[in-house]
Amino acid sequence: MTTSLENRVSAFRDFVKKISSYNQALAVLHWDMRTQAPRKGMEARSEVIGTLSAEQFKLATSKEMEAFLDELGASDTLASLDPVTRHTVLECKKEFDRNKLIPAETYQQFVVLTSQAETIWEEAREKNDFSMFQPYLEKIVDFQLKFIEFWGNDGKNKYNTLLDLYEPGMTVEQLDAIFATLREKTVDLVAAIAQSPNKPDTSALTKHFPIAEQDAFSRFVLKKIGYDFQAGRMDRSVHPFCTSFNPGDVRITTRFDENDFNNALFSCIHEAGHAMYEQNIDPELLFTPLCDGTSMGIHESQSRYWENMVGRSLPFWKGMYSELLSAFPAQFEGVSLDSFYRAINEVTPSFIRTESDEVTYNLHVMIRYEIEKGLINGTLKVADLPTIWNEKMEEYLGVVPPTDTLGVLQDVHWAGGSFGYFPTYSLGNVYAAQFAHVMQQEIKDYEELIESGDFTPIREWLKEKIHQHGKMKSPRELVEAITGEGTNATYLVDYLVKKYSDIYKL
Amino acid sequence: MTTSLENRVSAFRDFVKKISSYNQALAVLHWDMRTQAPRKGMEARSEVIGTLSAEQFKLATSKEMEAFLDELGASDTLASLDPVTRHTVLECKKEFDRNKLIPAETYQQFVVLTSQAETIWEEAREKNDFSMFQPYLEKIVDFQLKFIEFWGNDGKNKYNTLLDLYEPGMTVEQLDAIFATLREKTVDLVAAIAQSPNKPDTSALTKHFPIAEQDAFSRFVLKKIGYDFQAGRMDRSVHPFCTSFNPGDVRITTRFDENDFNNALFSCIHEAGHAMYEQNIDPELLFTPLCDGTSMGIHESQSRYWENMVGRSLPFWKGMYSELLSAFPAQFEGVSLDSFYRAINEVTPSFIRTESDEVTYNLHVMIRYEIEKGLINGTLKVADLPTIWNEKMEEYLGVVPPTDTLGVLQDVHWAGGSFGYFPTYSLGNVYAAQFAHVMQQEIKDYEELIESGDFTPIREWLKEKIHQHGKMKSPRELVEAITGEGTNATYLVDYLVKKYSDIYKL
Repeated sequence: MTTSLENRVSAFRDFVKKISSYNQALAVLHWDMRTQAPRKGMEARSEVIGTLSAEQFKLATSKEMEAFLDELGASDTLASLDPVTRHTVLECKKEFDRNKLIPAETYQQFVVLTSQAETIWEEAREKNDFSMFQPYLEKIVDFQLKFIEFWGNDGKNKYNTLLDLYEPGMTVEQLDAIFATLREKTVDLVAAIAQSPNKPDTSALTKHFPIAEQDAFSRFVLKKIGYDFQAGRMDRSVHPFCTSFNPGDVRITTRFDENDFNNALFSCIHEAGHAMYEQNIDPELLFTPLCDGTSMGIHESQSRYWENMVGRSLPFWKGMYSELLSAFPAQFEGVSLDSFYRAINEVTPSFIRTESDEVTYNLHVMIRYEIEKGLINGTLKVADLPTIWNEKMEEYLGVVPPTDTLGVLQDVHWAGGSFGYFPTYSLGNVYAAQFAHVMQQEIKDYEELIESGDFTPIREWLKEKIHQHGKMKSPRELVEAITGEGTNATYLVDYLVKKYSDIYKL
Repeated sequence: MTTSLENRVSAFRDFVKKISSYNQALAVLHWDMRTQAPRKGMEARSEVIGTLSAEQFKLATSKEMEAFLDELGASDTLASLDPVTRHTVLECKKEFDRNKLIPAETYQQFVVLTSQAETIWEEAREKNDFSMFQPYLEKIVDFQLKFIEFWGNDGKNKYNTLLDLYEPGMTVEQLDAIFATLREKTVDLVAAIAQSPNKPDTSALTKHFPIAEQDAFSRFVLKKIGYDFQAGRMDRSVHPFCTSFNPGDVRITTRFDENDFNNALFSCIHEAGHAMYEQNIDPELLFTPLCDGTSMGIHESQSRYWENMVGRSLPFWKGMYSELLSAFPAQFEGVSLDSFYRAINEVTPSFIRTESDEVTYNLHVMIRYEIEKGLINGTLKVADLPTIWNEKMEEYLGVVPPTDTLGVLQDVHWAGGSFGYFPTYSLGNVYAAQFAHVMQQEIKDYEELIESGDFTPIREWLKEKIHQHGKMKSPRELVEAITGEGTNATYLVDYLVKKYSDIYKL
């Protein structure tokens, strides 16, 4: 590398570090707003966030960035760069192009629209009035179509352009195949479960669980699985989330319900799954855009793995049950380990995705995926969504929401302008099952380790294979390197059938 | 005003708002670092703070700012501006000139020096070794002299340039007169107290006070005096502080000692005094540099007023004593109101300023003031400080610290490069007594209100006369408008003599 190139690389890395510093600061401002800030300070805080976001955006789309990308992104130069710089250039170029290809005015209109749409959606949901939201959603879909035009498309399916925002490389072709397998087997499984006379007794889970004790037990479990409280913290918020400022400071939030044991603990484990991914990213990637999960789907694979495949597994509770009984002796008096295990894995077709169980969850996601695909490809109209929603609910889950509030209006994603995001929730489950399958082969005494509460080998495996790489490897590269094959829903199906055949004695 | 001038004003206000947004964001990042952030995230956080601080500094010293100030600061234009914009221009100009007059390289060297000096000072204090710190302090004093040269001086006393940083308009001439009065009377008072046979019994204050109960009682008191928890919050930190992001979000911190009732409660009231100042600044000043206390001395007048003149007064505890007894029945069993009141006002000459009582506190400050003046005017040498310190302690307080750790090495201010700051602590007491004197005349049934726990008239008075103005009025303007005279230590002396003659039955 010539000295002049070295200087340019160093200047580029400084420039990227500055952008990353803005992002970290903004993440702190957001976290504080959602967990700590007093009511009366919100308005000024929003303005501060707006100002710093605009500054960050200016840098990321600046002439200076363009010059760096032109120079360092030229193929010969790119090949000569160290891997971190090379991937940083590629990642910045992706963001730069996406931002540059949309006229500033169009984007501004979209921001205003989604901001209004979120407010209207809240009201529409409250009033069970889809017609209020409909014109906004129609405009939002139109914007998606414009974006696809600006960004370009692979010529196979318009929706691929949106999918790529959240799951780089994923296509409708792959997803359709994945979901076909998953849907068929899941619908059968749900039907079999419905007919099973062996229903779990869940009454213990809705006894009274004081919040302080739930909090203490949740922290105990998170420490046990390896969430590092010296590199994070847990607070309360209306909706649980995980946010990373840097690998040494990855925070999670939760909410407690005194009358529902199921609520907080598994949500905490879920968020800790996200957080452990971020905590274990290679520190060398700090202050680059690579210091992040590689995709929404891979991120979700980590949260769902820990929540369901570990946290809702029998070995886990075999090891943890005496601790649970010590923490809540009255609530679980006379409840056997087996009965508890079956209770936390109850399967019931229900209306709300976020409250649904491990089996039916993917059916909720598929309904959204099919609707999004239809809207983007022009085979569905926004006006028909309430009807289509309910038809699909009946077909897949055998239940029909009595209101749109409990149906098509339940999620904020579309109001916020997010299309292409939903499928990643199920991809997370698919990936998680693939990874777990390999772990069972590669990690000696896998189940015994979980039962003994020694999660170090699992965490080390995840760190080595997934976490450390951040965005240095694409989701596809990760999946292929780990499993020797592509994305494959068979493992998830097998896992679900085996687990729930046992629980429901099918 | 012409349209083109209007446009320039509007652009200037936007520019200033951007700078203010950086400052608010930085304040959140600092607060989070000192109260919330996990250990492992500190290093990256420091870098983020460094990057955003540099951006803020760049804006405040930019050519763009210079152009605004040249144009809007021209005397004819200035006179035509609305008052908020006019004061904003003047405030920005002050900061701009200060920053511009010091060569960037010199300032950079100073930042590095004080950063090293703080580390060395910590070690020197721990090892009781002044000689380790001496060369650093010598260099820091040299930098102060350079700064005075760069910034210019009024030709009367070099130290005035430094005083002006913290207390605009204050001079050595005024301070010498104020402190002469204060010193003479205080030394006499301390001597009389020492000889009094009527010592308070403080044993109840060091019983066991569980932290959760101290926390609850402190919050009860803060709500009572009018700290708005919907526009703030209270957290824990190693050293208590108050930080304002905007008037709707002014946070305080405290620390609790289970074996010392005196520690947290009065520190909470002190910080709440600072916070109520910031909470009551006119919202019109938001996003300008005027949205801040007008000087360190006036700020301290608010904290010391609430802490000592309200919080340690007899009427306050007359009204609050039954609440105290309910909160801590065992600890204060058999302790009369009078005995409690005398205990929380115990006067004992001691070595450490931050732990000293209301009477001796100002003597600690004077020692530092006289030393700073001597160093800046070349009549004292850094090498002689340990000796001089101890001589003055003996002369003013009648005690000699057994080590430099308990003497000249106790405060971080000099290591951090702050010269001219210490006097504002005593000025706060002086101002507070002046304001309290006027309040007693202007607010009907002043003492009865305090006793009844109705602090609204006092708060409204402070808001109207002081708080709302932010930096729109100088400290001198405030003092003169309120009291009809200049800074005058007589009121503080009278207050102290009266209060402590009563307590010690002199």
